Amino acid sequence: MATAERIDLAAKFASFDKHWSPKAIEKVDGYDIKLVKIKGEFVWHKHDDEDEMFLVVKGGFRMEFRDRSVDMAAGQIIVVPKGVEHRPCAEHECEIVLFERAGVVNTGDAARNVLTNPTERI
Amino acid sequence: MATAERIDLAAKFASFDKHWSPKAIEKVDGYDIKLVKIKGEFVWHKHDDEDEMFLVVKGGFRMEFRDRSVDMAAGQIIVVPKGVEHRPCAEHECEIVLFERAGVVNTGDAARNVLTNPTERI
Repeated sequence: MATAERIDLAAKFASFDKHWSPKAIEKVDGYDIKLVKIKGEFVWHKHDDEDEMFLVVKGGFRMEFRDRSVDMAAGQIIVVPKGVEHRPCAEHECEIVLFERAGVVNTGDAARNVLTNPTERI
Repeated sequence: MATAERIDLAAKFASFDKHWSPKAIEKVDGYDIKLVKIKGEFVWHKHDDEDEMFLVVKGGFRMEFRDRSVDMAAGQIIVVPKGVEHRPCAEHECEIVLFERAGVVNTGDAARNVLTNPTERI
């Protein structure tokens, strides 16, 4: 539930280290605001029923699609439409705010793997 | 509809000047990502059915509630729960990313006034 409390993104990002492990910090109706740190190559996947917003706060990453890729930097947003295969890749650690429907699994339709992490609330 | 295109927040903010006039830049399912510049005092209002997220990108503002107020700075988020009266106030211009259900009117339940602005897509 939305709390009406001030949340400092830098303080929240400083509270965890694990990559590819989204942390939920607030709710907007049935949607989660999540923070995630990424580094390396993720798995190809899609979310059949949910769009997924990525807002880069620190660093940069490359969003790969099957037919192109998009280089992302701090202060930039990209929304991956539902059903579209994608793979985020980051050479260096990158901090990202995610916005997506609550309950979305980070690895989408990919077979459960070492990168599949439950969303913890912090 | 979500576009899968990179959106640069600074470039989008540079493309308009009007205060209290939210601009939609992308969609996540049935939700809008909006940008707004604020300066001065808004009107007291609430949104009966929608939570509303504010993420400060530049500057700062004070979120007033009936029983307290919260000083907000760049890099901080606050989500105003549905049904909660609030009034954003900014001494100096402040740039904010909003996330809320598409169709929300900026002045909520307040009588239509000079600050009531339709959400334009940019």
